[in-house]
Amino acid sequence: MATLTIADAERLVTHALAISKTSAENARSTARALVAAEADGQPGHGLSRVPSYCKQALNGKVDGCAKPVVHVAAAAALIVDAQSGFAYPAIDYVIEQLPAMARHSGVAIAAIRRSHHFGQAGAHVERLANSGLVAIAFANSPKAMAFWGGKTAMMGTNPVAFAAPMPNTPPLVIDMALSVAARAKIIKAQKDGRPIPADWAIDAGGQPTTDPASALAGSLMPIGGAKGSALALMVEILAAAVTGCNFGWEANSVLDDKGAAPNLGHLIVALDANLLSMGTFTERMGGILTAIAADPAVRVPGSRRLKSREKATRMGLEVAGDLLAEIEALAGREIDRQ
Amino acid sequence: MATLTIADAERLVTHALAISKTSAENARSTARALVAAEADGQPGHGLSRVPSYCKQALNGKVDGCAKPVVHVAAAAALIVDAQSGFAYPAIDYVIEQLPAMARHSGVAIAAIRRSHHFGQAGAHVERLANSGLVAIAFANSPKAMAFWGGKTAMMGTNPVAFAAPMPNTPPLVIDMALSVAARAKIIKAQKDGRPIPADWAIDAGGQPTTDPASALAGSLMPIGGAKGSALALMVEILAAAVTGCNFGWEANSVLDDKGAAPNLGHLIVALDANLLSMGTFTERMGGILTAIAADPAVRVPGSRRLKSREKATRMGLEVAGDLLAEIEALAGREIDRQ
Repeated sequence: MATLTIADAERLVTHALAISKTSAENARSTARALVAAEADGQPGHGLSRVPSYCKQALNGKVDGCAKPVVHVAAAAALIVDAQSGFAYPAIDYVIEQLPAMARHSGVAIAAIRRSHHFGQAGAHVERLANSGLVAIAFANSPKAMAFWGGKTAMMGTNPVAFAAPMPNTPPLVIDMALSVAARAKIIKAQKDGRPIPADWAIDAGGQPTTDPASALAGSLMPIGGAKGSALALMVEILAAAVTGCNFGWEANSVLDDKGAAPNLGHLIVALDANLLSMGTFTERMGGILTAIAADPAVRVPGSRRLKSREKATRMGLEVAGDLLAEIEALAGREIDRQ
Repeated sequence: MATLTIADAERLVTHALAISKTSAENARSTARALVAAEADGQPGHGLSRVPSYCKQALNGKVDGCAKPVVHVAAAAALIVDAQSGFAYPAIDYVIEQLPAMARHSGVAIAAIRRSHHFGQAGAHVERLANSGLVAIAFANSPKAMAFWGGKTAMMGTNPVAFAAPMPNTPPLVIDMALSVAARAKIIKAQKDGRPIPADWAIDAGGQPTTDPASALAGSLMPIGGAKGSALALMVEILAAAVTGCNFGWEANSVLDDKGAAPNLGHLIVALDANLLSMGTFTERMGGILTAIAADPAVRVPGSRRLKSREKATRMGLEVAGDLLAEIEALAGREIDRQ
């Protein structure tokens, strides 16, 4: 394990991306998001992505220099075409523009199209909650889960993220994929030679399996059986059909540099809760804090992420040595060329 | 079992409500919603509610004569105060007004406050989908589920409903409570002297239980463990905090006539998917139909409800004899008084 500060990590990742056919502005936006996910204790959306992001930008599966193209479709509706670039420059634009639209109209919506890996979904809605808005985001991802009753991976793990401002504390943030477990956990079990719990996945024949290899050849299970599967379909519709993008079963991977751009979609809704609650929203959210605080066994969702962030800010990020060496090698290319 | 036509059922329920201190208009709206739920195979939101609805209107817990009061809070935001009446007159107003607002602004939102039982949530969003919009609804309900890690029932079962127009077929409708099982199923098991599955509920000490009585004294379990619990909290915030209403742990029952009005909230969002998808939404939804049809083991969510509705339209509603007698007795009061 090596330790580096958040600022050093951002500089390093920005540089690795920038010399991988990515514009300086896009590299900065993308590095910020990946490092923030790492700091929040979500390494699956963090530094582990840097090598594959660089590879995809280098071979053009992702257009690292894409500038998002914006259409204001209506007073409360923004369409942002990510132009097959990374997701974060488009998301940054939405986070900048949506609050004023939501305050004007009571609610506003952004459809991000032709996009890529949504990253740490909770971080995006948290930024809107920091502007005083309640926000929900839906994103689809490449095929991982079967339709309910089916055997073939079709839908993505399809994150739902939600954030709401809280009185005198950071926003409450809910952020989840709709699969019981992340694919990365199954890959880890395979590496470690351990079986997985029987409710994580089905094999290619549609049967529950505890064997990581069979699970990876099959489909992940949704939370809550048929209900979670229906929620995942809802997210496919909101994130891909409403934005005019590829469904999970049509999208290429965001992890390798094979094939065309994944063309994933994201849908972000922000609403003015103070207006809709006739001025009582802050008092109501205080009521949730009081109710949760009454039972020491209950936590406010998202509190672990704040602890992780605080620790990373104070002590720096702990990064596996081989991953850091790989990122440094990517960032070192320019130096080699000087 | 007795059989009666949908029209006869609507007349009967309208009459039972109208002579229970409910205005003719509100009785008609409420009867339509309850009978539609019964026809759709959701008796828990159907005729079984008539006796308790009448009782609550008679003693004033529900103001049967309430007229919803409307505030247009912003161009895309409607606040409807149900004035402690039944939910359906307020919902009817939203369904009538929201489509034009969503078409104008790209998205529109309605916060319904001081309301009551949300009924068959899927039916409300289906009506918006019949106007060509994608719609999502969130409602909270009286306490039934503990916070994650807690032992005491706090949050409601908190339905989420979603509907989207489909090409050449009725809208796709997703409608679920976030508990694994409905409380009514546990009551039924208790009556039948059967144990319940171990994942339905915890007892008052927070331990999983298969005993219906212990379950009813404890809390229902959310789908998907901590993830489903977080979704239920999200729905509490959207339905109650954003509308300025009571949380599940503050709201009186919608089943008996004890205490003050429950003051529940509902939040409904409608969006213009054709606009946001740049005209590709119908083609995209066709792609879902094709993908689902490719596997005979997979069904479009909501298709069972359509079969039930079709059968009820053709053959009438089958209603338990004792429930029908109870409703007829309620509707007969006026005749007694003549």
